[in-house]
Amino acid sequence: MLFHVYVNVRIPHDADPEQVKKLGAQEHERAKTLQEQGKWLHLWRVAGKFANVSIFDVESPAELHEILNSLPLYPFMKVDVTALCHHPGSLELHK
Amino acid sequence: MLFHVYVNVRIPHDADPEQVKKLGAQEHERAKTLQEQGKWLHLWRVAGKFANVSIFDVESPAELHEILNSLPLYPFMKVDVTALCHHPGSLELHK
Amino acid sequence: MLFHVYVNVRIPHDADPEQVKKLGAQEHERAKTLQEQGKWLHLWRVAGKFANVSIFDVESPAELHEILNSLPLYPFMKVDVTALCHHPGSLELHK
Amino acid sequence: MLFHVYVNVRIPHDADPEQVKKLGAQEHERAKTLQEQGKWLHLWRVAGKFANVSIFDVESPAELHEILNSLPLYPFMKVDVTALCHHPGSLELHK
Amino acid sequence: MLFHVYVNVRIPHDADPEQVKKLGAQEHERAKTLQEQGKWLHLWRVAGKFANVSIFDVESPAELHEILNSLPLYPFMKVDVTALCHHPGSLELHK
Amino acid sequence: MLFHVYVNVRIPHDADPEQVKKLGAQEHERAKTLQEQGKWLHLWRVAGKFANVSIFDVESPAELHEILNSLPLYPFMKVDVTALCHHPGSLELHK
Amino acid sequence: MLFHVYVNVRIPHDADPEQVKKLGAQEHERAKTLQEQGKWLHLWRVAGKFANVSIFDVESPAELHEILNSLPLYPFMKVDVTALCHHPGSLELHK
Amino acid sequence: MLFHVYVNVRIPHDADPEQVKKLGAQEHERAKTLQEQGKWLHLWRVAGKFANVSIFDVESPAELHEILNSLPLYPFMKVDVTALCHHPGSLELHK
Amino acid sequence: MLFHVYVNVRIPHDADPEQVKKLGAQEHERAKTLQEQGKWLHLWRVAGKFANVSIFDVESPAELHEILNSLPLYPFMKVDVTALCHHPGSLELHK
Amino acid sequence: MLFHVYVNVRIPHDADPEQVKKLGAQEHERAKTLQEQGKWLHLWRVAGKFANVSIFDVESPAELHEILNSLPLYPFMKVDVTALCHHPGSLELHK
Repeated sequence: MLFHVYVNVRIPHDADPEQVKKLGAQEHERAKTLQEQGKWLHLWRVAGKFANVSIFDVESPAELHEILNSLPLYPFMKVDVTALCHHPGSLELHK
Repeated sequence: MLFHVYVNVRIPHDADPEQVKKLGAQEHERAKTLQEQGKWLHLWRVAGKFANVSIFDVESPAELHEILNSLPLYPFMKVDVTALCHHPGSLELHK
Repeated sequence: MLFHVYVNVRIPHDADPEQVKKLGAQEHERAKTLQEQGKWLHLWRVAGKFANVSIFDVESPAELHEILNSLPLYPFMKVDVTALCHHPGSLELHK
Repeated sequence: MLFHVYVNVRIPHDADPEQVKKLGAQEHERAKTLQEQGKWLHLWRVAGKFANVSIFDVESPAELHEILNSLPLYPFMKVDVTALCHHPGSLELHK
Repeated sequence: MLFHVYVNVRIPHDADPEQVKKLGAQEHERAKTLQEQGKWLHLWRVAGKFANVSIFDVESPAELHEILNSLPLYPFMKVDVTALCHHPGSLELHK
Repeated sequence: MLFHVYVNVRIPHDADPEQVKKLGAQEHERAKTLQEQGKWLHLWRVAGKFANVSIFDVESPAELHEILNSLPLYPFMKVDVTALCHHPGSLELHK
Repeated sequence: MLFHVYVNVRIPHDADPEQVKKLGAQEHERAKTLQEQGKWLHLWRVAGKFANVSIFDVESPAELHEILNSLPLYPFMKVDVTALCHHPGSLELHK
Repeated sequence: MLFHVYVNVRIPHDADPEQVKKLGAQEHERAKTLQEQGKWLHLWRVAGKFANVSIFDVESPAELHEILNSLPLYPFMKVDVTALCHHPGSLELHK
Repeated sequence: MLFHVYVNVRIPHDADPEQVKKLGAQEHERAKTLQEQGKWLHLWRVAGKFANVSIFDVESPAELHEILNSLPLYPFMKVDVTALCHHPGSLELHK
Repeated sequence: MLFHVYVNVRIPHDADPEQVKKLGAQEHERAKTLQEQGKWLHLWRVAGKFANVSIFDVESPAELHEILNSLPLYPFMKVDVTALCHHPGSLELHK
């Protein structure tokens, strides 16, 4: 089941840069694992912003929530979720 | 070069349903061709809405405009374009 | 799987009142069936508006789309879908 | 009398995490009591957000205010209240 | 129980002016009755707009909906309802 | 002359709670005086929010500003003012 | 008493151009009279838009409403009113 | 003096396509003249939309208004004007 | 050349009140000078808000920027500029 | 390939003014280099705001992101990117 997730990251200007860097590195590790598991289908950066667009392929909204909640930078994210479904004009095979 | 395109289709309530149906069928044909050409990379429907989310892989904003402008339902579309770029945490290889 | 659906109905002022009435009656029939099937879990009217809030329990966003799309008044609806999940503080048992 | 309540929780990034955790635990206790009393009818989490959707069944807006105001995390909540009423197409029996 | 109701009236420019005038006259009659019954507590015009602010004193959101729905100009109204409660600093006695 | 005033109070999370409590008590005193003078005609709390709706009966916008500015919690208020006038359908006698 | 009035004029595309022209001419006449009476203190056009900014000097919100309502193009106007008062730093003498 | 002008063109769906085409051709003629006069400094299309971004170099807001008002498609345009000035970090020489 | 300037002043709650008071006094001095020079044509306070509406008469957007930038409270201001021009229905003579 | 970039700079009020000044000077250096390389085609200040409008001529959204990300004041910028393309009515030759 596919969800479109728009994430805007907002680091408070007085956050510790070392800590943010460390969280960013952990985030990449986590993202790698989730992509290899086929859960995090696509991940793109929005040009000019500290923001990204993702497509997740999960069993349920609950699994999506758990995944997003597990991301190291989650406390700094503004997240918007949109439920997607197969488009009759698409040649891709989605569940 | 990747662009995220959110399309909201708004059919005026007094439009001719036969004409809209015909345009919809032509739209599917056009979408099929563009997907086969590798221009229209992904196409998903937004659950509950007459709206969709797409990823286009084009040479330039001009080519993107030309493609969108060629869609039969374009006169009824509200289109929002977001330029994407490779995310350092993504395992996909984008140009 | 639960989805929160906010529907705002907008009848164009020059629509045929008889036709709208007929669609409304069909809508109630359809809503009854879907509630009996356990798909349409809750349905409330928003006080003062031609709008409602619903909770749907479906297999997937695709099934949700199909259901909403099958409603007689769908062409007049502005629909907003929010994916829900079990709240750890809730005593209700959701899937 | 039914009210739809959308709560968005916003924890300031420099809040004491231990204190927030403690308030969260107290919140669950309070939510449990209110559900058992039949005041807090439904409680769902919004997927991907620190937000929830609830349906309260109370005697008056004043009782609703008192309940919300008694929640341990209330100082961090952005609350939006919508008055609901029975929908003629609903099979549920509401007061 | 008190509700704050903001009404914005939008007459389509091609509506029949005679019909609108007639509905307006009926509206005043209806408003008079509801004020005499103590249901429509206050009614003010917003300076410069075809809009008004009202306070209703009703038994429930359902009664509020019924009242608003019975207004002759209702099909042209955009209605926003806000549930009010007694303010501890107010000298007025509200239920 | 009547003005509709919507006040949203936003206490910064790191404000001194004792100080806020004290200001709140002073606010009630001030509100009492202004109500007794007939300046502050109505005061209602918005259910679920730290917000209120008021009707002021003043000589001029300047007097309204002076009154609002004199409120102890004014520095924490977001204020929206709407000029009202007598509604031809209202049975109340306003100046 | 001063009010800031922002007016956005929206002529429906199928309105009769002759009729609109005639209303515009009547509007200028009316504006002239009101300026000569000292009611309509200032009138500026917003560059690039069919919109204007005005300052009115009136006895009350009710008089403002009556004036705006008497304008020939009023049915096509979106009006926003802001109550002004003397600024302590201003050298102009306002009532 | 430089102004940034964002124009969104909205053709009503029941407008005569021949008439719109003719206005579009006249628009190009007018744009050509204004560019040759050095008034219309830059003109870009927004990818995916019937919208454009322009920079005008004019004597005053009044001249800008006159120019925009003279465009054949002006009645269908939503125009937003932003006054620009030389940026101290820019190597371009602006008046 | 006339510009409409809406200024919203936002003093952070932890700013030094003495410093803010001092800046406010300097602001009045500066406003006085600019009004005497005929640059700051009008200045009104928005009733109920720490905000004001001004009309500036300047040579260019650059001069306007320089003036606003020179105001002691500028770092706390949210500024919105609208270019104005003579309205054909106005009896005032503007440049 | 052209992109329109709107940048709004927001300096937190408790930032070190010396540090901000230093970053501003570095920003000008960086802007100079990028303009000389032909990447940063235009740069204008928005009158009255700490904001600017730019046109960038880059190879891809990725290059645009890299450039913006390299600006010393980037952590304080809110950036909005719009993809542009040649307008058929423009006399400028764009790639």
